[in-house]
Parts: sequence; structure tokens; C-alpha cells
Amino acid sequence: MAVLTAPALETAGEPSTAHKATLVVLSGDIDKLDAAFIIATGAAAMGMEVTMFFTFWGLQAIRKPVRNGSSLFGRMLGLFLKDIDGVGPSKLNMGGMGRWMFKKMMKARNVATLPELRQIALDLGVRLLACQLSLDVMEIKREDLIDGVEDVVGVAAFLETASQSKTTLFI
Amino acid sequence: MAVLTAPALETAGEPSTAHKATLVVLSGDIDKLDAAFIIATGAAAMGMEVTMFFTFWGLQAIRKPVRNGSSLFGRMLGLFLKDIDGVGPSKLNMGGMGRWMFKKMMKARNVATLPELRQIALDLGVRLLACQLSLDVMEIKREDLIDGVEDVVGVAAFLETASQSKTTLFI
Amino acid sequence: MAVLTAPALETAGEPSTAHKATLVVLSGDIDKLDAAFIIATGAAAMGMEVTMFFTFWGLQAIRKPVRNGSSLFGRMLGLFLKDIDGVGPSKLNMGGMGRWMFKKMMKARNVATLPELRQIALDLGVRLLACQLSLDVMEIKREDLIDGVEDVVGVAAFLETASQSKTTLFI
Repeated sequence: MAVLTAPALETAGEPSTAHKATLVVLSGDIDKLDAAFIIATGAAAMGMEVTMFFTFWGLQAIRKPVRNGSSLFGRMLGLFLKDIDGVGPSKLNMGGMGRWMFKKMMKARNVATLPELRQIALDLGVRLLACQLSLDVMEIKREDLIDGVEDVVGVAAFLETASQSKTTLFI
Repeated sequence: MAVLTAPALETAGEPSTAHKATLVVLSGDIDKLDAAFIIATGAAAMGMEVTMFFTFWGLQAIRKPVRNGSSLFGRMLGLFLKDIDGVGPSKLNMGGMGRWMFKKMMKARNVATLPELRQIALDLGVRLLACQLSLDVMEIKREDLIDGVEDVVGVAAFLETASQSKTTLFI
Repeated sequence: MAVLTAPALETAGEPSTAHKATLVVLSGDIDKLDAAFIIATGAAAMGMEVTMFFTFWGLQAIRKPVRNGSSLFGRMLGLFLKDIDGVGPSKLNMGGMGRWMFKKMMKARNVATLPELRQIALDLGVRLLACQLSLDVMEIKREDLIDGVEDVVGVAAFLETASQSKTTLFI
């Protein structure tokens, strides 16, 4: 594609897709968030422009460790939502033991923790965006998200970015 | 890509990929189905050609509210399969309470329900296709699917569509 | 895109993306593995170059039926990890009954089993790659993987392949 994304075309107002990657992160499991951030940081390290859209359970990865919710349901949901340091694996969580085990095993292998990976992502310029609709439904306020979150957007912004990306994953 | 998908190339028999999106929907959870239909309707509203392939648990989104299954196993499975109005979230379903809570919270925010989103998708021309193999294995009959389903197809049809799409997601 | 990936461009060192598909397989559920292998074999049969990256629970699809783990945690995790013949569905596993039921229903419909699909994939030239990081964290040794696994690689190899692929799915 390099031939096709020459400066002449680029300046013609046509975005290059060869070096963009977009991830929709709906899952809030430690294993899937690990995969998402490892792919995102890896791609950014290789020079790709990476955008991550967090929605539903994925919002746990960009929340501050606060309680949320105003309605009865929102407060109940708030009891279950974690921050990035508190999420467990999609399998074998076993009442929290799985989370502890996973983190222990990753540490033993010198794998960066999720909070570290998120910081690396930010340092490498990965864009973190939050889904407006999910924030509304789950009663999470904008100020409950970490400062690194660039913006709160709708589905159109995601589709716009995805349409310019070489690789788009739903995680 | 607009430069590259000019009419001259299009008529040369080469399909444009810039404005097509394809979703494989294997999940039958309300949160993932919501994401799938919100992306699909959003893309269709932006003028993209959208195709959704429903397979395995995702078939619940395009079933009529009927019991299915002919063999013993099929009938047992039929007890668990829901229609689009009965599916629960991937987390915190808590014996159905999660579904009720989710629907309540979405309604409070004026988010369209899943049945409404599906109708909007159909109105916007989103193609709904069912996976032949999954129908067979799960003993769901063609006539148990809603009228809006355009066709029942195999994996080759999905790959054909995906190969012409700018964005393909596995949900 | 055929026009754009003509031999002249190809020999200019630019890889064709029109006929490549890449799958990241993180899930270890029989339904998702079935979908992954059916898509992979279907694509390969249509002449596409297909690469599957197995990570986390997905590694169960390319393990030999052995116990793994050296540390206490690794051995505990090893008790839960299955091989491709032992994995259950993402829903309704019901202590193993779901697995048995699923396999029975697929057999009744003459659907290839997972081990058979994996062999077909290998026969059709699908590349099976394992994620180095996951192997380390889950304490699975290279020799515990089936012989058909071509290589053990990092995220950069995945991104490289994905950036040349028309379709990339996260399963």
C-alpha cells in the first residue's frame, strides 16, 4: 500500500489506512484487557496510530477507583464495577483467587501489569476514547474516568476511525 | 481511498471496500447484541452497506419466540435459547435480574431496545443472514427465524462479503 | 483492489492484502473454536492465506493432552486447561454435559469435530502460531504444543501479519 499512500494522495485529503489500528474494548476481563493493551502498545511501538474505544465492561479499564451510580440500579451496578487493578479473568476467577493468581503469574514472568500497560499506551500516544452511551446507561460520570481519556464519543466517531484503519478488532 | 474507488475502477469489476462493514455475531448476550446493532445501525445511517451474520448464540437475535429442537438434545437446548427480548447480559445476569436491570437502565436513558434496534437495522437496509451450520446443529428451523432474515448461508458467503468490507468484526 | 495489487506493485515489495486473513484466538470455548476453525478452513479452501494466533485460553486448541505448570499456580492452572478434545461451550456447559451434548449434536449433523477441523486447517496450509507471552505466563512449554504449530511468536509478528490482511478477527 505504500505506493498508494504517497504524499500526493495524502495531501489530496485521503487518509492512509496502512498504519492505523482501532480496538473496540467491550470486555472487562483481565485476560482480554491484557490482550487489548498488548496489541495497542505493540502497534503504537511499531509506529501505528492506535485508537481504543471503551464501552460497557471495558470502561472499567479507564475508570478511577470510585463508586458510581445515582439511581438504585446504577448504585447496585457500581458495587460490581472495578477499576483496572481490580478486574478478574474471563475464566477461573473463583471468587477473586483467579485474579490474584493471574497477576502473580504475570509478575513472575515480568509482564507489565494492566495499569503499567495503560500508562505505556498513553506514553506512546494511543488514544483512549469512552463510549457516551455506555457511560449514560451505566451511570458513570465523565469525571470518574482517568485524565488520560481524550474524549467521550458516539458510535459515529468509532466508525469514522475504523473506516480509516487497516485493522479493527472487537475485544 | 475515494481516489482509488473511483467509478472507473468500480466498473472494472472491482468492488469498493470503503463503505462496507460486516459483523459476525456469535454472542447472544444483551450487551454484545446491543453493541452489534448500535454499530450496524450507525454504519448504515452513515451510508455504509452492512451485513450481519448470526451464528450459534447470536441466532437468538433473529429467532421468533418459539421452542425449537426435535431430538432430545435439541429440545433441551431449546429450553435455554431465548428470543431477542429475552437475552441477558454477559456479566451479572443473576438469574434474570441483570437482564431486567439492564433493560430498565437503558430505558431510563431513552436507549432503543434490542427489538427496536433490530427494526431500525432492517429499515436502514442492514442485511441479516443466518449461518446454515448453526441452524442445523442447534435444530432451529428456517421458519423459526424472523421474516427480516434475508437468507441462510454458509461460511463462504461470509468470507466473500468480508473480503469486500473495510471493517469486519467478530462479536 | 486487484487493480492495485497487480504484479508490478507486488514485485515492488508491496504485499497483497486481498487474500490474507488473520485470526487471533483468545477464547477456549468449543463454540468459538469451532467458528474460528470453520472460518479458517473455509478461507483456506477459497485460496486465502490464513494465519491463526493462539493466545491465553485459545492455546488449549494447540496443546497436547498433557499436564503443564511448574510453579504451584502453574500446576493449579494446568488442572483446568484442556486439549482441543476437552473444551466446553461458552454457555450451558453444565459441568461437562454441555460439551458432550454439543459434540453429540454436531456429530448427528455430520459436522467435523474440532480435532478434525484442526487437521483440515493444517492440510490446507493454515499457519498455526502460538503467543510467546501466554505460553510463559501459563507455564506451557513449547514441546507441549502439537507438532503442527509453526512457530512461537510475539505481538509484533501478529501485527505484521494483520497489517497485510484483508480481514482480521479477534475471537
